[in-house]
Amino acid sequence: MCELLGMSANTPTDICFSFSGLMQRGGKTGPHSDGWGIAFYEGAGLREFRDPYPSYNSEIAKLVRNYPIKSDIVISHIRQANAGRVCLENTHPFTRELWGRNWTFAHNGQLKGIKKYPLNHYLPVGTTDSEYAFCWMMGKIRERFPKPPARPVTVQRFIYDLAEEMQGLGVFNLLLTDSKYLYCYCSTKLSWITRKAPFDQAVLKDDSVTVDFKEVTTDKDIVSVIATDPLTTNEDWHVMQPGEYIVFRKGEVDFRQEA
Amino acid sequence: MCELLGMSANTPTDICFSFSGLMQRGGKTGPHSDGWGIAFYEGAGLREFRDPYPSYNSEIAKLVRNYPIKSDIVISHIRQANAGRVCLENTHPFTRELWGRNWTFAHNGQLKGIKKYPLNHYLPVGTTDSEYAFCWMMGKIRERFPKPPARPVTVQRFIYDLAEEMQGLGVFNLLLTDSKYLYCYCSTKLSWITRKAPFDQAVLKDDSVTVDFKEVTTDKDIVSVIATDPLTTNEDWHVMQPGEYIVFRKGEVDFRQEA
Repeated sequence: MCELLGMSANTPTDICFSFSGLMQRGGKTGPHSDGWGIAFYEGAGLREFRDPYPSYNSEIAKLVRNYPIKSDIVISHIRQANAGRVCLENTHPFTRELWGRNWTFAHNGQLKGIKKYPLNHYLPVGTTDSEYAFCWMMGKIRERFPKPPARPVTVQRFIYDLAEEMQGLGVFNLLLTDSKYLYCYCSTKLSWITRKAPFDQAVLKDDSVTVDFKEVTTDKDIVSVIATDPLTTNEDWHVMQPGEYIVFRKGEVDFRQEA
Repeated sequence: MCELLGMSANTPTDICFSFSGLMQRGGKTGPHSDGWGIAFYEGAGLREFRDPYPSYNSEIAKLVRNYPIKSDIVISHIRQANAGRVCLENTHPFTRELWGRNWTFAHNGQLKGIKKYPLNHYLPVGTTDSEYAFCWMMGKIRERFPKPPARPVTVQRFIYDLAEEMQGLGVFNLLLTDSKYLYCYCSTKLSWITRKAPFDQAVLKDDSVTVDFKEVTTDKDIVSVIATDPLTTNEDWHVMQPGEYIVFRKGEVDFRQEA
């Protein structure tokens, strides 16, 4: 299984601490050595780093861990390949433009028969099930909403329906964003935590690192982190149920659909 | 004026040497301090680095200069903003997907009245003239060729016509790629060089660096580099004429349209 990591914040926040834990799972404390990628949003702008090599000794991953890129939304993925060979075009996250927004997608799981689904506007560059599913979802969203609808909840519900359909094909743990919302669907495994004042210390599970959030935040900061497995040992993470769906906006739960 | 840098090679090649010269122009030997970006192709796969800060002291640019990423095609841009504020979404190069290929675009110049052109499939995320022009071109290509035509020269000619139309709006020095071809249109300023055996030394103009290509190449390597201004002092660069158009494939000129 691949590892997912997402972040949504109400103020530009760096992900160094959480990423530092995640990247250890890329070939060191975990078996996910078939590449990794991360997408950072600064407003509408998108910055991506991607490597078809293990994350724990990647030069680029080192940069990402040490250089505090402040962003509003982050999606990261480390890969254990099951469908599609190990190469750059098969490395998550994937991105496409719709409504003049950068959409980013990362997934873990397998989807049986996905390649029989018809595609229209968006075509995959690589050969993974995941990118194919992303193109299908984006095509569906575009077909149904040529323009963003007045009420964001309409899209939120529609994406839930698409995720449920994908879930019917196998395993579909999903992180998706349009630069404003972070859409998370739990098929088998996904946990999250919201951090806000009063901030406290956190201790990473995969790396001997402790951070004191009091020192790096203000009282107004609200940050949610979503990961395949809890990344810290001393905090209470919410473990999502299979079929549960949460949309984050500016660090907080904006929409929730129970399983 | 912004600075452009492109590379097309018949074997995965790193751009460290040329990039090292270019990045000095980002706020040190040149005035282009409003961000920079670079796109690397490994086959169909795309890797991008982008920063809305000056390149000469950027952490990410340092990584790109020191870490030899081998690629088939590279497009890089350092920016001196004239239209659109300085932020990540206004930082070249821009990318979109068509035909299941990643297309990348970088431009220097201004285009008067471009925003009156109608867009269909692709919408800009930022506010630059350049990204708008890219979206317009991509929409035109998609409309005319829903699928890639049998003869690549058909697309090559079509892109020339689009570039000529853009050129009518002002200044349009262009680097564009679909992961297979590198399309270069000279509006005012663009030079290129093809390096092949027997390889020799090259001396950078903007940085006190010399490279001996004999030591880092094989006899079969063919690499073309395209830049706003020649990057080396001891080689014969071809200076393109305004209105001239060249398409490179695997390091060599594949199509050429004189001014």
